[in-house]
Amino acid sequence: MGPHPAVAAIRLAVRRALHDILNDHQTSSAEKTPHERPPSPLVLVACSGGADSMALASALAFEAPKLGIRAGGITVDHGLQPGSDLRADEVALRLRELGLDPVESVAVTVGREGGPEAAARDARYAALDAASARHGACAVLLGHTRDDQAETVLLGLARGSGIRSLSGMAAVSGAGGRYRRPFLQLDRQTARKACLVQSLPVWDDPHNADPAYTRSRLRHEGLPALEKALGKGVVEALARTAQLSRDDADALDAWASQAETAVRDAAGLLECAKLYALPPAVRRRILRRAAIEAGAPAGSLFARHIEEVDRLITAWRGQGAINLPGKVVAQRQGGRLVIRQG
Amino acid sequence: MGPHPAVAAIRLAVRRALHDILNDHQTSSAEKTPHERPPSPLVLVACSGGADSMALASALAFEAPKLGIRAGGITVDHGLQPGSDLRADEVALRLRELGLDPVESVAVTVGREGGPEAAARDARYAALDAASARHGACAVLLGHTRDDQAETVLLGLARGSGIRSLSGMAAVSGAGGRYRRPFLQLDRQTARKACLVQSLPVWDDPHNADPAYTRSRLRHEGLPALEKALGKGVVEALARTAQLSRDDADALDAWASQAETAVRDAAGLLECAKLYALPPAVRRRILRRAAIEAGAPAGSLFARHIEEVDRLITAWRGQGAINLPGKVVAQRQGGRLVIRQG
Repeated sequence: MGPHPAVAAIRLAVRRALHDILNDHQTSSAEKTPHERPPSPLVLVACSGGADSMALASALAFEAPKLGIRAGGITVDHGLQPGSDLRADEVALRLRELGLDPVESVAVTVGREGGPEAAARDARYAALDAASARHGACAVLLGHTRDDQAETVLLGLARGSGIRSLSGMAAVSGAGGRYRRPFLQLDRQTARKACLVQSLPVWDDPHNADPAYTRSRLRHEGLPALEKALGKGVVEALARTAQLSRDDADALDAWASQAETAVRDAAGLLECAKLYALPPAVRRRILRRAAIEAGAPAGSLFARHIEEVDRLITAWRGQGAINLPGKVVAQRQGGRLVIRQG
Repeated sequence: MGPHPAVAAIRLAVRRALHDILNDHQTSSAEKTPHERPPSPLVLVACSGGADSMALASALAFEAPKLGIRAGGITVDHGLQPGSDLRADEVALRLRELGLDPVESVAVTVGREGGPEAAARDARYAALDAASARHGACAVLLGHTRDDQAETVLLGLARGSGIRSLSGMAAVSGAGGRYRRPFLQLDRQTARKACLVQSLPVWDDPHNADPAYTRSRLRHEGLPALEKALGKGVVEALARTAQLSRDDADALDAWASQAETAVRDAAGLLECAKLYALPPAVRRRILRRAAIEAGAPAGSLFARHIEEVDRLITAWRGQGAINLPGKVVAQRQGGRLVIRQG
């Protein structure tokens, strides 16, 4: 008798990810001389102790040895709740019980920048980056599910800043493709079920149910209401939107990169007539990049800023300089668009 | 003392739309010889009697004469409720009281194709097309607000079929730009307020509150829950997403059109190697167009179909023909992709 369908599903997802990792690893190892080649690649799982990442850890422990991969685990203690250090030790113990080695619990200090969720995320990824480098891991698996992806798309939608922010999380991200998300097409329910049938104890982070957090409100109120109105396929539709938006945003970024060279004059200034001839979507991407290059902070540069600069091209009637965040100024001078820190 | 801010807002929105219509009209009239030029352009408003379109009618009646435009109105009786004919006559009466002329109430028969909402919409636009032609109108104003736009984006999101379906309604659409939506950046509350302060009686279509309709569930449950989770700016963010997605989708469609010529061989067949070199977003658009051209119905062609065809290019391992809706078959033959009705 084979494993429970939920367990089969999580293992298949991890097996596919490990195959990809091995392919990428062999390609990069082949560039080295034989005696430099490491004995056996190490893959780490980032585990909070919640159902998604515990399911991921169990599947990694099962699949990795069959492919000659060493499997380890990292748990991050954010220090945001009393006793979080003990909890982290407990998660580390469970990871060892699954057969993972090395296993490490890393304590971080969460700052305040960008709000509590962003600050915790920044601290967590910094710790994972460091742990990954310290252990010489070739990849770190993350337990984000299709449900997390749907929530991320809605959070991006709420920013109203275009299709890049609708593209959610990538299956492969980070420097050198370090981070992998094998469960991005798997629903949260499957991960939870897999833990249940494998008798894996899971920990429900109280933050996930705390209505003070946007993502938690979205998960427990926003998405269910949307599903009630639009039908059960909403989560899948949002995840598919993420993938399609990502591909579209990549293509348009590539177009903008190419076009940018063509619209600059010999002195490197942007020529208004050439910008005018481009499709608005491409032109605005070029303007955005130019503003960021001149020193405008990407996070403070909104669609309305770029639209105002765009009017120097499309609705020119002698208007003055446009002030952008980061003390950057955009102005039209003799058929050229000049964007620089003022 | 000026008008109430809500009234000022609806009038400004309509004034801007009328200026655009006049510009477009003068451009097209200038191509005719002088004695063919019509005396005074006619703009119609499509009015259900609801707050949005009543506000629109009142603003049109106020602004049109000042610009030498004749203003008329059409109300469509969908025949879906008992007494709907009397209601339509009442709306027509109110439009006449606003000073609109001509005013017409048009009865339509709503079919069943595509569900009740789509069938009613199809019947309505067919009637508006005909009325517009009959009266020689140069434009028909529609009362869709920013809230309607937000709902349309969410409905598109639920399809999960990419950024074109996120782009909502266009400010200008239809043959020759016949349809104009002056209120697309205005919220529903402003339209309602404008009716109230002008003592315009409005009719609340019971369909709008009927939970049997997806849009109604979205309006009364889905969107409020999303606003509660994500904050009050959601409607505005969704409307902005619509505009950005539309520009992006237009640019990518243009790219796909151009690239399509370049990837066909002398016999007009798609060359796999050239398709492979394109960004996925562009390649999939070309594949989709080719499938539709071969006879696949656009409405039945989903992202997963196109992905499967795409794997003939990106993951070729000798797989057989792919069956698409409309009995269209896609197969790879000697480095060419052949898509045709089988």
